[in-house]
Amino acid sequence: MQRSSYFIAVDWGTSRLRAFLCKVKSDGSLKLVTRRAGLGVSKSALSFEETLMQCISPWEVEYGKLPVLMAGQIGSSIGWKETPYLSSPISPQELAKSCVNFQCNGYNINVIPGLSCKLENNNYDCMRGEELQILGWLQLAEENQVGRHLVCLPGTHTKWVLVEDGKIKLFKTALTGELFDLIANHSVLIQEKVTVFNQGVFNQGVFNQEAFDSGAAFTLNSEMGSLIHGLFSVRSRQLFGQLSAHEATSYLSGLLIGSDVRASMNATEWSLAKMDKVSIIGAPHLSSCFASVLESQSISTEICQVTTTTLLGFNSVFQSINEVNQETA
Amino acid sequence: MQRSSYFIAVDWGTSRLRAFLCKVKSDGSLKLVTRRAGLGVSKSALSFEETLMQCISPWEVEYGKLPVLMAGQIGSSIGWKETPYLSSPISPQELAKSCVNFQCNGYNINVIPGLSCKLENNNYDCMRGEELQILGWLQLAEENQVGRHLVCLPGTHTKWVLVEDGKIKLFKTALTGELFDLIANHSVLIQEKVTVFNQGVFNQGVFNQEAFDSGAAFTLNSEMGSLIHGLFSVRSRQLFGQLSAHEATSYLSGLLIGSDVRASMNATEWSLAKMDKVSIIGAPHLSSCFASVLESQSISTEICQVTTTTLLGFNSVFQSINEVNQETA
Repeated sequence: MQRSSYFIAVDWGTSRLRAFLCKVKSDGSLKLVTRRAGLGVSKSALSFEETLMQCISPWEVEYGKLPVLMAGQIGSSIGWKETPYLSSPISPQELAKSCVNFQCNGYNINVIPGLSCKLENNNYDCMRGEELQILGWLQLAEENQVGRHLVCLPGTHTKWVLVEDGKIKLFKTALTGELFDLIANHSVLIQEKVTVFNQGVFNQGVFNQEAFDSGAAFTLNSEMGSLIHGLFSVRSRQLFGQLSAHEATSYLSGLLIGSDVRASMNATEWSLAKMDKVSIIGAPHLSSCFASVLESQSISTEICQVTTTTLLGFNSVFQSINEVNQETA
Repeated sequence: MQRSSYFIAVDWGTSRLRAFLCKVKSDGSLKLVTRRAGLGVSKSALSFEETLMQCISPWEVEYGKLPVLMAGQIGSSIGWKETPYLSSPISPQELAKSCVNFQCNGYNINVIPGLSCKLENNNYDCMRGEELQILGWLQLAEENQVGRHLVCLPGTHTKWVLVEDGKIKLFKTALTGELFDLIANHSVLIQEKVTVFNQGVFNQGVFNQEAFDSGAAFTLNSEMGSLIHGLFSVRSRQLFGQLSAHEATSYLSGLLIGSDVRASMNATEWSLAKMDKVSIIGAPHLSSCFASVLESQSISTEICQVTTTTLLGFNSVFQSINEVNQETA
């Protein structure tokens, strides 16, 4: 830690840029000093360089030009510096070694690559950004670094990640959040639109636990393939006075999350019954929704705070890069 | 047939109005004389009366004010005359008896009610307009009026209809077509948008049978709940060079139709294995897509021409109304 005890972590996705000024303490642990936000890869009218500088340059006066670590869609084909997808299984050290390094405006910047994996059905899967949360989760407890574990990252796309002996082995993506958004806002199923999110924060007043539970129970317990035949019940339950539009929105969320959890319970790549627990890393409300559905199936869960976990992941990469630099120095 | 040998059938849905001037021949069979189109329930800026008159009044000079039969969303809460949902099981005669009659601008108009049913899982289902196709299908062959039959009506929403001894017993709605539209046009899965429909007509050049088949095979043959975990392959197969954007659109269609057919094969309300065949009534391309997936599962199919079948349904209701009128005259 001699060379630098501060760095800037940038989680730069499609919609948002989140920059964190981090201090690495002498024992290697991390402290979040401050944060700033900016526009995502597909949102900013400025160049990527201008967008980044606008966000982090105010810190220059006090801290100088700190090393920058970036992850997310900024490393994709629609981003600034395209990084390859690295093949899983992969260790944190291998991931850190493959960062794409460049200089910009006096800053030393490393972009963390995304990951790909090949599933048993020969389909590929991929992620960009979520790998940081897994790296961070590995740092949360020593027991996470041995044996098989399943980590669930709910969001626009749910990622179910199988971790084995400290390596990211494989993962599956489910469209759960995006389908919720499309169906709740653009389909005939819910005519009276309910504002579920306001500036990215879940509108808690909208949520109805009972309706959510009945939706989840429907897809968890009914015949195979029930999602495509079950979705229409979101509309028919309103037409026949069983649900209000608000309740129908929670019911839809339950249907989709129930279907996602059921698919994970039936996945051929892992056996949920053999896992001690599923670790969940995501926004608080969504995480607790996934936890309640998993717990209803007698699967233990552990919810991890998303920003803390992500920053631990950045710290893990930062330390690996520093070690390599010290070795080669 | 003494009282009138001509009538106007109006299939008036959310997007489109289709009016058919029909002649009932002396043997009771139907001849389509001519047709006109207009705007659907949610599309016209004019009143319902003006929209209808604009469409059918040009026929007055030659034919006078013919009896009008209407079906579809025009009888819903967003339509002109709201009709109740009648409970299934129901016979064509019972349906015809429950038409809502009114006079407008010298025309005698009957609106055919929609249907509802309660499924084994206690969810309700409902339809408006598709019941005409079932009534028409019952007229296609005497054998259709005895025993159990399954009729598949693909469209924005697929309707799977169980017919037993000449009555509509129950039915299930799948969101297949609407999900296709939402995902193909509004999700991250397909970045390069492909014009699949042009003014309601399928763009045949877009369709790739091989990609469609591989999508259908995926949801037909993989583990339970594969739809929500399988959808992401639409994107990953493009990212990893296995499908072009055009092919991905056909692959997505296969995934969804495969999932719909699989759900029907696993439905608790009927046993597809015990049916001689599945009758399919829908647009030609979509019907052949459903037929190919069903046939791949060794289920025989029969495709029925949609306009012919719909008009036979209108004729069936028209004749029932005439019989009732003659009895009461």
